[in-house]
Amino acid sequence: MTPYPSDALSVQLPALKSGPVSVAGWIHRVRRIGGLTFVVIRDGLGLMQVRHSDADAPLPRLEPEMAVRVSGVLVQESRAPDGVEIREPAFDVLSEPESPLPFHLGAPTLEAGLDLRLNHRTASLRHPSIRQVFQIEAALAEGFRSGLAARHFTEVWTPKLLGCASESGANVFSVQYFDREAFLAQSPQFYKQMLVGVFGRVYEIGPVFRAEPHDTVRHLSQYTSMDVEMGFIDDHHTVMAVLRDVMDVMLQTARPESALDWPKVPDAIPVVHFADALEMVSEGLGEDVRHEPDLAPAHEQWLGAWAKSQYGSDFLFVEGYPMQKRPFYTAPDPARALYSNSFDLLFRGQEIVTGGQRLHRYQDYLEALQERGMSTAGLEGYLEAFRLGMPPHGGFAIGLERLASRLMGLANIRDAALFPRDLKRLEP
Amino acid sequence: MTPYPSDALSVQLPALKSGPVSVAGWIHRVRRIGGLTFVVIRDGLGLMQVRHSDADAPLPRLEPEMAVRVSGVLVQESRAPDGVEIREPAFDVLSEPESPLPFHLGAPTLEAGLDLRLNHRTASLRHPSIRQVFQIEAALAEGFRSGLAARHFTEVWTPKLLGCASESGANVFSVQYFDREAFLAQSPQFYKQMLVGVFGRVYEIGPVFRAEPHDTVRHLSQYTSMDVEMGFIDDHHTVMAVLRDVMDVMLQTARPESALDWPKVPDAIPVVHFADALEMVSEGLGEDVRHEPDLAPAHEQWLGAWAKSQYGSDFLFVEGYPMQKRPFYTAPDPARALYSNSFDLLFRGQEIVTGGQRLHRYQDYLEALQERGMSTAGLEGYLEAFRLGMPPHGGFAIGLERLASRLMGLANIRDAALFPRDLKRLEP
Repeated sequence: MTPYPSDALSVQLPALKSGPVSVAGWIHRVRRIGGLTFVVIRDGLGLMQVRHSDADAPLPRLEPEMAVRVSGVLVQESRAPDGVEIREPAFDVLSEPESPLPFHLGAPTLEAGLDLRLNHRTASLRHPSIRQVFQIEAALAEGFRSGLAARHFTEVWTPKLLGCASESGANVFSVQYFDREAFLAQSPQFYKQMLVGVFGRVYEIGPVFRAEPHDTVRHLSQYTSMDVEMGFIDDHHTVMAVLRDVMDVMLQTARPESALDWPKVPDAIPVVHFADALEMVSEGLGEDVRHEPDLAPAHEQWLGAWAKSQYGSDFLFVEGYPMQKRPFYTAPDPARALYSNSFDLLFRGQEIVTGGQRLHRYQDYLEALQERGMSTAGLEGYLEAFRLGMPPHGGFAIGLERLASRLMGLANIRDAALFPRDLKRLEP
Repeated sequence: MTPYPSDALSVQLPALKSGPVSVAGWIHRVRRIGGLTFVVIRDGLGLMQVRHSDADAPLPRLEPEMAVRVSGVLVQESRAPDGVEIREPAFDVLSEPESPLPFHLGAPTLEAGLDLRLNHRTASLRHPSIRQVFQIEAALAEGFRSGLAARHFTEVWTPKLLGCASESGANVFSVQYFDREAFLAQSPQFYKQMLVGVFGRVYEIGPVFRAEPHDTVRHLSQYTSMDVEMGFIDDHHTVMAVLRDVMDVMLQTARPESALDWPKVPDAIPVVHFADALEMVSEGLGEDVRHEPDLAPAHEQWLGAWAKSQYGSDFLFVEGYPMQKRPFYTAPDPARALYSNSFDLLFRGQEIVTGGQRLHRYQDYLEALQERGMSTAGLEGYLEAFRLGMPPHGGFAIGLERLASRLMGLANIRDAALFPRDLKRLEP
């Protein structure tokens, strides 16, 4: 078998011994100082500094975004960004850009508005500050999986094409499926519950689809959902305990080296009941919201500030949302039937996770559907899971793009999707 | 924070000390021998033996698939399947099945035909022999990711909703996307190539959609594709070397403890050129197939047997498929322009992976599209990646369900999908 090409990666260079080396990447920036030319090469993971002096073999014409391979000598150089630089370079140009770039990628920040960034996505993604968002997303997913694997969760892949739009009904995309109509899954909710009966604890990372008819900074038509469901819980507090621990692994895994203000998950995330939250918000904002059925964004912001000042916590659990605002499969609070065994996790005053305990008895499902005037038609396969023995179970879902945009302080969720899809955008 | 419930999992029991224990799961099988009752409990990962004697607290009525929690005393017992058994049990019934099961889950193999298995999927998946297929799929995915992460690949999530059906055109599902038409992605091919320009090496595990109008044992409308793409390769041999190493990690990670005939990836997978393969098959089968543009299943079978007898290998690379049968982005063999720098990986005589080197120069794309009479319309976002500098690159795709069905010797690929989708099936 042919060995891999022997190019070193940017992340490997600092640990290599001085001596001959080859690297490969793109021309990121060229700077001439005195008789020296400094060429910054960008590979898929980082930047590398190449120093060319007049005594070296002549440089070819170098332009930003050329793909090149560079052979030279690696030396320790304390003034170089990573403590190493490549000298006596020989450049092999692998391919050349065909057209002027839509913007300058060598600058520390990308000077390009949202539409320009998204219309020329293969270009804007090459900028290190933009690319980093997705390196963090990959690390968040890695932490999510490793945290769950350590707790014996099984990864599953469920259908995205459904015969029935029953889960929510609204904002569903319709698909021409041979000679009938199908619908794109808005979440793996039903399937992850059904699979609790098989694997006990499951998770899925995959796309979900929402035909969101509004053009907002918070919604995408397709996003990556990180879904968890587990059986044999006491109640929703078991789910919250798992979420706390998994979120901790995620943030530790994804923490960038350069992060100054990276959040820490407290050992015990503070918990407030929905009813108490409304009391506190009413007092705090001087406005009676005690009869609201849900938290408005301003309420969540107030609660986030409160959790920070009271507990020093970026995270806050709100539990016990009213049953009327939660889906039919939600388990009620056994002590207060108007409230549910559900929760949201707020991060810096914004919801990043929703979860809760579900009903687990077949008869409870029949009653819950009837109360809401819903039919069992199309739900037969889902309900069969509850006709078999199903334990008390619950779970949660994290939107990967939403979490990343909150962590990175991005104003628009589109910047947290490689190729975002919205009301108007299907390209690139 | 409330601690997790203290139930031990089946996989943890053998390592626990004797003493009080609680477990949770489903009633899998009940057997009475003399004055003893042996209850086998199935949790999400395995089986556990509970022994009840007449001196213990009375047993409640136990029925298959009841969800229960059992408290008792763990003892070492060499006659028990895992060397441990739970005695003096107290049962807490968490929920009861509502209806007779469609088949008997306590038997060593599930006696149920394909339609019955799939129509009652939440029941059939509970059988350990069926469930194991998906535990192996989860392990294959874990091996895929860990093999690639060790080689500095970045995980990505790409759009499944496309504005243009250009990649292949045929067998595409159409979606009503607000006021226009969209198409479900048949593969992440274009996006993974575009992202080589960003991350250098990428992979994705996600659903792909094929409107396959034939009812065969080999096709699903939705399957899980494991896609890889990498830059700065020498040629397709670099890609084959990575595939060999990643497949090795996958099979080692997924090897079941009970496996007798689990395949091993050889250090060097034998490679045969397509043209030589046709010569050999012609001679072997006594039938002139030297001018065929592709390998038929019978040819692949013959080659698989040949690789086994000549090299003792379950795996065989066929490289250099004719350009005419490969997609427009395929790189030709620089020495023999009618052949391509592409490959298939055969496992026991059946194709499980397809891959190759791609074109990387913008002008080559324009020419390749023109030669095939294809328009650039709708491909602007894809082609922009090649107007920037793109290095030589290539990759491959593995269908998770197909690989699992080959490894497990399943006759129908539907048995390798949790909830398969085909021409007729959208439920459950």
